[in-house]
Amino acid sequence: MIRFDCDYLEGAHPKILRKIVDTNYEQTPGYGNDIYTKSAISKIRKLCNKENIDVHIVSCGTQVNLVAISSALKPYQGVICVDTGHINVHEAGAIEATGHKVIITKNKNGKITSNDIDKIMKDYINDGACEHMVMPKMVFISFPTECGTNYTKDELKSIYDICKKYSLYLYIDGARLGYGLVSKDTDINTLEDISDLCDMFYIGGTKCGALFGEALIIINDKLKIDFRHNMKQRGALLAKGRMLGIQFDVLMENDLYFKICKNAVELAMKLKKALLDKGYKLLYDSYSNQQFVIINNDKLNELEKDFSFFKWKIIDENNTAVRICTSWATVEENVDKLIEKL
Amino acid sequence: MIRFDCDYLEGAHPKILRKIVDTNYEQTPGYGNDIYTKSAISKIRKLCNKENIDVHIVSCGTQVNLVAISSALKPYQGVICVDTGHINVHEAGAIEATGHKVIITKNKNGKITSNDIDKIMKDYINDGACEHMVMPKMVFISFPTECGTNYTKDELKSIYDICKKYSLYLYIDGARLGYGLVSKDTDINTLEDISDLCDMFYIGGTKCGALFGEALIIINDKLKIDFRHNMKQRGALLAKGRMLGIQFDVLMENDLYFKICKNAVELAMKLKKALLDKGYKLLYDSYSNQQFVIINNDKLNELEKDFSFFKWKIIDENNTAVRICTSWATVEENVDKLIEKL
Amino acid sequence: MIRFDCDYLEGAHPKILRKIVDTNYEQTPGYGNDIYTKSAISKIRKLCNKENIDVHIVSCGTQVNLVAISSALKPYQGVICVDTGHINVHEAGAIEATGHKVIITKNKNGKITSNDIDKIMKDYINDGACEHMVMPKMVFISFPTECGTNYTKDELKSIYDICKKYSLYLYIDGARLGYGLVSKDTDINTLEDISDLCDMFYIGGTKCGALFGEALIIINDKLKIDFRHNMKQRGALLAKGRMLGIQFDVLMENDLYFKICKNAVELAMKLKKALLDKGYKLLYDSYSNQQFVIINNDKLNELEKDFSFFKWKIIDENNTAVRICTSWATVEENVDKLIEKL
Amino acid sequence: MIRFDCDYLEGAHPKILRKIVDTNYEQTPGYGNDIYTKSAISKIRKLCNKENIDVHIVSCGTQVNLVAISSALKPYQGVICVDTGHINVHEAGAIEATGHKVIITKNKNGKITSNDIDKIMKDYINDGACEHMVMPKMVFISFPTECGTNYTKDELKSIYDICKKYSLYLYIDGARLGYGLVSKDTDINTLEDISDLCDMFYIGGTKCGALFGEALIIINDKLKIDFRHNMKQRGALLAKGRMLGIQFDVLMENDLYFKICKNAVELAMKLKKALLDKGYKLLYDSYSNQQFVIINNDKLNELEKDFSFFKWKIIDENNTAVRICTSWATVEENVDKLIEKL
Repeated sequence: MIRFDCDYLEGAHPKILRKIVDTNYEQTPGYGNDIYTKSAISKIRKLCNKENIDVHIVSCGTQVNLVAISSALKPYQGVICVDTGHINVHEAGAIEATGHKVIITKNKNGKITSNDIDKIMKDYINDGACEHMVMPKMVFISFPTECGTNYTKDELKSIYDICKKYSLYLYIDGARLGYGLVSKDTDINTLEDISDLCDMFYIGGTKCGALFGEALIIINDKLKIDFRHNMKQRGALLAKGRMLGIQFDVLMENDLYFKICKNAVELAMKLKKALLDKGYKLLYDSYSNQQFVIINNDKLNELEKDFSFFKWKIIDENNTAVRICTSWATVEENVDKLIEKL
Repeated sequence: MIRFDCDYLEGAHPKILRKIVDTNYEQTPGYGNDIYTKSAISKIRKLCNKENIDVHIVSCGTQVNLVAISSALKPYQGVICVDTGHINVHEAGAIEATGHKVIITKNKNGKITSNDIDKIMKDYINDGACEHMVMPKMVFISFPTECGTNYTKDELKSIYDICKKYSLYLYIDGARLGYGLVSKDTDINTLEDISDLCDMFYIGGTKCGALFGEALIIINDKLKIDFRHNMKQRGALLAKGRMLGIQFDVLMENDLYFKICKNAVELAMKLKKALLDKGYKLLYDSYSNQQFVIINNDKLNELEKDFSFFKWKIIDENNTAVRICTSWATVEENVDKLIEKL
Repeated sequence: MIRFDCDYLEGAHPKILRKIVDTNYEQTPGYGNDIYTKSAISKIRKLCNKENIDVHIVSCGTQVNLVAISSALKPYQGVICVDTGHINVHEAGAIEATGHKVIITKNKNGKITSNDIDKIMKDYINDGACEHMVMPKMVFISFPTECGTNYTKDELKSIYDICKKYSLYLYIDGARLGYGLVSKDTDINTLEDISDLCDMFYIGGTKCGALFGEALIIINDKLKIDFRHNMKQRGALLAKGRMLGIQFDVLMENDLYFKICKNAVELAMKLKKALLDKGYKLLYDSYSNQQFVIINNDKLNELEKDFSFFKWKIIDENNTAVRICTSWATVEENVDKLIEKL
Repeated sequence: MIRFDCDYLEGAHPKILRKIVDTNYEQTPGYGNDIYTKSAISKIRKLCNKENIDVHIVSCGTQVNLVAISSALKPYQGVICVDTGHINVHEAGAIEATGHKVIITKNKNGKITSNDIDKIMKDYINDGACEHMVMPKMVFISFPTECGTNYTKDELKSIYDICKKYSLYLYIDGARLGYGLVSKDTDINTLEDISDLCDMFYIGGTKCGALFGEALIIINDKLKIDFRHNMKQRGALLAKGRMLGIQFDVLMENDLYFKICKNAVELAMKLKKALLDKGYKLLYDSYSNQQFVIINNDKLNELEKDFSFFKWKIIDENNTAVRICTSWATVEENVDKLIEKL
């Protein structure tokens, strides 16, 4: 069985494991005060070309989202997000559990537009009873989106501008950031690019080569205050924080993070081309490591003898859309085997 | 200035005031343990034709909703509601502030259908990652809806049946219950009718003749446990609970609640007929005390010299939809004056 | 049966009822935007001798506490309070339900001292892991305390000074403020006095002559922001806000609030003298409307044929401490009857 | 510098690292559905001698506490704990952030007694206004305690009995469980022993040989329902759950967990004997891996040139109590060096 259902099937890039093994007996202070975390932070600052940013590394995506969002908002404030947004669908109400409404608007290929935000804000401001409404205070987007699509610089700038106009924070979920930055449908290709166009974002580790770990980057000074207090309160301060530090220290060295993501995306593009050549229909025009393809159920049953996919959506009684993921760990041979059987 | 913008412009029905004055110097125990609250509860039980129901009277609508919903749900559970639902729009995120997601679906004239609920439940159950989703556990509807429309017995029964099928609680917000029960577009006309078809509902007082106060009726035994603990925790247990008890004791006596609401609805119907006769377009076909009418802006400016309305929606640059409310306190003379000027 | 168990046994001062009746048919805007609320606020500002304060009137004590405290604190911050404090004991965890820890210290006759606060802050600051602790950010006291005692100007100034030193907000629960301000054990006797020495406090209505209602006074600008949003979210914005406004408008006119509280305290002092003359032991040396007296159980049983008290504490198998309250509604004749039977 | 300040200074036991490396390229399902987690659970069930228990492995101690406690309690319920309890002091209000009060009682050498619990429950039940109080529903203890002491079987049985009498859940924080089970001051020495005497407990990994990870064992059926939903909502469901599974699978094999903890405790006992022989005073009579010793400040300064300790408490101006920890990774040679310098 060759698995393509998600991008967190294997362990970690071998360089990470090597460093964990090599440093195992060193004694380091806890809770992210170790030299490896410090080194990782220093590298991230350089890659963002910004000295004055805060970096906190936590264990998983839902955790980083709930800590970051609940830290930024006052009780009566909410976060704007597309209907397909991860915090709206697949985090079991983690944001609401911290007391905040997720204010939704319909996605366009997984994306939000500055017009969508403008409309929500005008509806809020013009409502005769706006004191009785949740005050929108943050926009949440994913890069890449849940549909594998990416914002261009112009799109993101336009979103960030409207956020600034209405005093909204812009927060970017980068669970698959590495795959997005190397995609062909965007000119946002570096950590510096993305850190120029938001108040806060995170660099996903779990799905991009780490055992676990997501690095939150806080650019807006207002969002930095007492952040570690919030982390601790939500159970997000790991005692052996070095485990997180070591992983990002390795990933941020010599472009490793980008190289391994690039390989995954190239294999996804090879697969995409094959799918299109063979006449398969794609649900979204994705240039990242996730491809969403509609397959006839009989064909799907046959393929599932050798391969696993994630069932994304029932299209009709004869057809199903499945998600096929490549990852940092995918080998070309397996992609070729899949292409052959398609 | 004659005001029609809402149904909570005046004080209370004079019979309520008289009893408050008459009993002022009696010493009664606090927190709803007084004889007036007990008498009100007894009358409500008779009107529902159910001895085994719990009744708790609290101060206002947002309060009763947040106490009732947060009491019923476990942390990871959410409540289904139409997009126009009061808890989704105009309660400032009160439900989310207790930790729960409001799961929305598009309204049809303010209503939800059993099919909408069925679809949400199937999407939840069939999702490969349903453990990562908020578990729907309650359906919230309003009677009448925010658009002034009412469910019929068949519609409500169908909703309640699908709720039972999926182990969902059905909770009815009755902020304007009295006006709904006397509307011509429904065959649900008594407290017994409505209490047969849900797990929990409230009888609105504030908008139907009381100074303030909403009586929550709990039919489902599971929802009764330790309810007063929850009320206290949310600041919903009034020291002089008799103030709430007296008001409902008076309203539930000799059909006063229904008589005063009927008068309001009859005046609304007189107004509706006049509007239609004069060629005005209505936004919704409402048979309750709220009418939603589209008025040309010039005409509106003229009318607003003498009357006040609630601006509901901008239709286009020349037209606005306004809400016109009658209430228990509206006098026919004022409705006639408005009709004359329309 | 003559009841002395609490100070919320009767309705409201007749002047309040009269005004509610007289204004019943006036049409006023909702949610505290009416002329009566505006007039009440204006009077309170004059009595505090401060134009630049915000005033919000809500329904009950637990509600005002939970809205005020949750509005001031960030998620990881807590509120310091004595072990006997109302928010620590008798609000069913209302503060914790908004996410905040109540940090307790042992009371001295119901009071906290500036030394207690200093010690808590030093323990926090000096802890090697203070990031792992709740950050104290507010001090909560009651005036008068749960034991009926009052802070002097020197004591309160000392507390407020230490609060300012450590950037803590000082919030005063004034559920029985009127009774405290007319007590002989304090030189804090006016709303101006108390508003000089804290960031936020409330003027209790429910126990001091109103049907219900507590007026929150916000002095510190930082605590004013978006406060009505918070109120709405917690279900604390009454539709017919005029009900609250009218009551405080009457109470704040011609010193009515102070006069009726003074009468209650004088009767309490008459009772206290009688108790001491007859050799009864008092649990606390209270100069306010609550007296805490130890009574032999046989005597108590006899008294309870004609009078009701609140059982405060079991002293030993033969003796019980009871709370005896006078109120704005207590008549001297009943106090005399009690004295006679003691 | 040889560090003794805590027990989470190094990485993990080498057998754990080896298995992580060996399995790195295997493709496994996410979120704890992998074969290693299943194998770990199976081993834990055998060691507890109970087939019908649920096991969930999460990343860290604060996280397991907040998920477990918030999952068990209704909004108005609280958890009883000693004043020195970890959830009361060093989890930044994590429990309160989920809405629940931590009800505290004074510790005796870090422990609670059944009498303490009995008193809290009687105070609650006998209070005339118990509906206005937080309802105690759980007792939280640590094994070993924050002072390094351990409960005996008789003590724990007595606590569990009183819990059952009052329908309280008993939950045991086992952050250092391994060190406790091999301590000489208790006859609770196996996972079976401890699982017989509580409703829920966790086996600490982070401080006992793992990189990170704590295994929660749920014995009481009522606490099992929908637990993974809760985990997800709190950000406690790790995508690569195998990382947690592998670690516990290794630790639970061939008594590894117990062997490495035993070694640490033996070294601590060697140190304790040396301290007592040299006339040092100990703050608590600990038989586990943490020793709390009072050291003269001059001597301490000298020692701190070569060794690090955790400053526990200022005793007086000349003396400080420090915590000295051994761990699974401590080597005898370093303990000997410390003894020599003492």
